[in-house]
Amino acid sequence: MKDWIDVTMAISPSIMVYKNKEEKMPKFIVRATHDKDGHHESSICMDLHTGTHIDMPKHMLKEGHSSDAFNLESVNGRCVVVDFSKSYKHEVDDEFLKFYKFEKNDIVIIKTKNSFDKTFNYEYDFLNASGAEFLKNQGVKAVGIDALGIERNVPGHPTHRILLGNGIYIIEGLALAEIEEGIYEFMCIPLKIADVEGLPARAFLRSIKDV
Amino acid sequence: MKDWIDVTMAISPSIMVYKNKEEKMPKFIVRATHDKDGHHESSICMDLHTGTHIDMPKHMLKEGHSSDAFNLESVNGRCVVVDFSKSYKHEVDDEFLKFYKFEKNDIVIIKTKNSFDKTFNYEYDFLNASGAEFLKNQGVKAVGIDALGIERNVPGHPTHRILLGNGIYIIEGLALAEIEEGIYEFMCIPLKIADVEGLPARAFLRSIKDV
Repeated sequence: MKDWIDVTMAISPSIMVYKNKEEKMPKFIVRATHDKDGHHESSICMDLHTGTHIDMPKHMLKEGHSSDAFNLESVNGRCVVVDFSKSYKHEVDDEFLKFYKFEKNDIVIIKTKNSFDKTFNYEYDFLNASGAEFLKNQGVKAVGIDALGIERNVPGHPTHRILLGNGIYIIEGLALAEIEEGIYEFMCIPLKIADVEGLPARAFLRSIKDV
Repeated sequence: MKDWIDVTMAISPSIMVYKNKEEKMPKFIVRATHDKDGHHESSICMDLHTGTHIDMPKHMLKEGHSSDAFNLESVNGRCVVVDFSKSYKHEVDDEFLKFYKFEKNDIVIIKTKNSFDKTFNYEYDFLNASGAEFLKNQGVKAVGIDALGIERNVPGHPTHRILLGNGIYIIEGLALAEIEEGIYEFMCIPLKIADVEGLPARAFLRSIKDV
């Protein structure tokens, strides 16, 4: 694991969740203890979109496929990290993204001001439809962001639909505070869960060279 | 992910669980559907020792540390896969293991007849105390097996105690049916969950050379 930087949110009872919704908070249940049972064993109940996770097309598209058709190659490989965190704006759009050079099958990771939020920020930065359309036209294979949602209160979820509808996976909840803009290798390893619409994952970046 | 062989059990409502205990079966709860909510979202409730997972010392040792002190290096690196699956015996012992050559900090993966079981087998193959003691003396850093428990109905859990008490992590629930004996690189990437005694994980093998 040398040189890999962990960009995963740690899952805990107090992890930041989307809009602070109680039902999205993970719950831990202790089932056995040393004093009573001679060992310690616990369970977790969690929304599949907790912390760092991958959205399957089924999450936003009625006919979209579940994790059964997911391939690890889709979220592993060459990656460009773009830094939107200095912008006064909240919408990552095509105007911002066109200053970067992407290659076909790149994974694009968007660092924003969200990575510095300690509590859920209702005005979080997000990728708008023009940005999603631009990335789709560049032929990227996945898009990651440090928000718990890649869009925000947009009717019809166009960003999700443009990406997931074109075979582009979405990784949400990345922890990018320490990451600088540049070219990286991205490694994203989700749990192997059958037939679901979201996969909790571990994610790492390894620097290749500067942009 | 080229050349990596996935050796993870898929988590599903019907995954094989230890002694077929109902409370160990993962439960999936659908929280939103396309017809009602315009998107699909679900939760999982699962024992942290479901399918492929790593035991932390806290699981079996009252003073043992939790995942907070876990380091990925402990379960990633050079690996020796030993094949016990042709043995008529059920206990992997020092007599069997001494025919292999291990290096300090190796990860030892034990393939047994368990990898071919379709349902939970109460007579599963396991690592006994003499085998654990032998591996400890070889200086290995982790031991993996294709059983849901690395030992079976042994009072005081000596195998767990010998390994976890000496900083040797245990990976249980590996899927090794297709794996041949040999030298590999092992990659084991668990979810990042704070302060727990078990970590669900994804695991892979990549061949280096034959023994």
